[in-house]
Amino acid sequence: MTRYRYFTAMSLDGFLADEQHSLAWLLKQDIDESGPGNTTAFLTEVGAQVMGSSTYEWVLAHDRDWLPEIPTFVFTHRTLEAVTDRISFLAGSPSDHRVSLEHAAGGRDVWVMGGGGLAAEFAAAGMLDDVDVSIAPVTLGAGKPLLSGAYDLKLKGCERNRDFVVASYEVRGPLNDG
Amino acid sequence: MTRYRYFTAMSLDGFLADEQHSLAWLLKQDIDESGPGNTTAFLTEVGAQVMGSSTYEWVLAHDRDWLPEIPTFVFTHRTLEAVTDRISFLAGSPSDHRVSLEHAAGGRDVWVMGGGGLAAEFAAAGMLDDVDVSIAPVTLGAGKPLLSGAYDLKLKGCERNRDFVVASYEVRGPLNDG
Repeated sequence: MTRYRYFTAMSLDGFLADEQHSLAWLLKQDIDESGPGNTTAFLTEVGAQVMGSSTYEWVLAHDRDWLPEIPTFVFTHRTLEAVTDRISFLAGSPSDHRVSLEHAAGGRDVWVMGGGGLAAEFAAAGMLDDVDVSIAPVTLGAGKPLLSGAYDLKLKGCERNRDFVVASYEVRGPLNDG
Repeated sequence: MTRYRYFTAMSLDGFLADEQHSLAWLLKQDIDESGPGNTTAFLTEVGAQVMGSSTYEWVLAHDRDWLPEIPTFVFTHRTLEAVTDRISFLAGSPSDHRVSLEHAAGGRDVWVMGGGGLAAEFAAAGMLDDVDVSIAPVTLGAGKPLLSGAYDLKLKGCERNRDFVVASYEVRGPLNDG
């Protein structure tokens, strides 16, 4: 069954990017590209990708190699350029598109690439199963948040990959503080 | 030599407490009290404690047992009640008080208890050596931030303690994004 997996990297204080959208703090870190949390292994498990419009625009501006060769869905109400024929644009809630996303994934998982607003929309729709996060050894103090909402997670495991703590979670549901 | 150690717990998305100052999301988690990152072992290594006024007021309001039996310095410009004779109030920068803090610690380490504003003031003064953080399996989406500033850290190690990822860092200095 298709799982929705938020696979990302962040600073220790929970930011995906700094306020200027820079990832320099992330890309300078040392990582074993075939070690825990590596993207190559992850990509063999996913059949489609979703992202928000800010993430899409970041990829277009910085490094189009970040677009994997799988069906990619950009959630936006704006008109954006499709730079490959694998890219589609969707509006509305994740649940409006569940059938088509899972069809596109062809039995594999869906990569929820970010940002934190879109990941929260998927979580609110009950369409976020896993959070796999590589934590870089920096604090940013401000920036783009990991997830715009309060959720209970279940720790599956943590490992070190050189400069990174790689932590894997299941999403249990909205935070129960009672 | 005395080290300044920021020993704390946070949500995965980097918050020390939620916007209502609640720690219910933290205190409900399972932890081995004698496992990695445990407070009892940490307390044997520290000789004094510093905290900000909001943290102090939280402890007074919620659980005075959180005040360990070591000299405790509250950084504040306000007039607050000293609930034990171990509590002193300091104003100004951490560096103004370095000699007296290290004297009070008696050769042991200083626990920078938080919050994130005070920890950042210590870091800015070059008086933050370690960040030891236990990461609870929740996101909060908003709250009191871990550290109000951008710093490079060095990962010393990470371990699991039941529901928690326990990560230990050295502070390298202000973030170098060049």
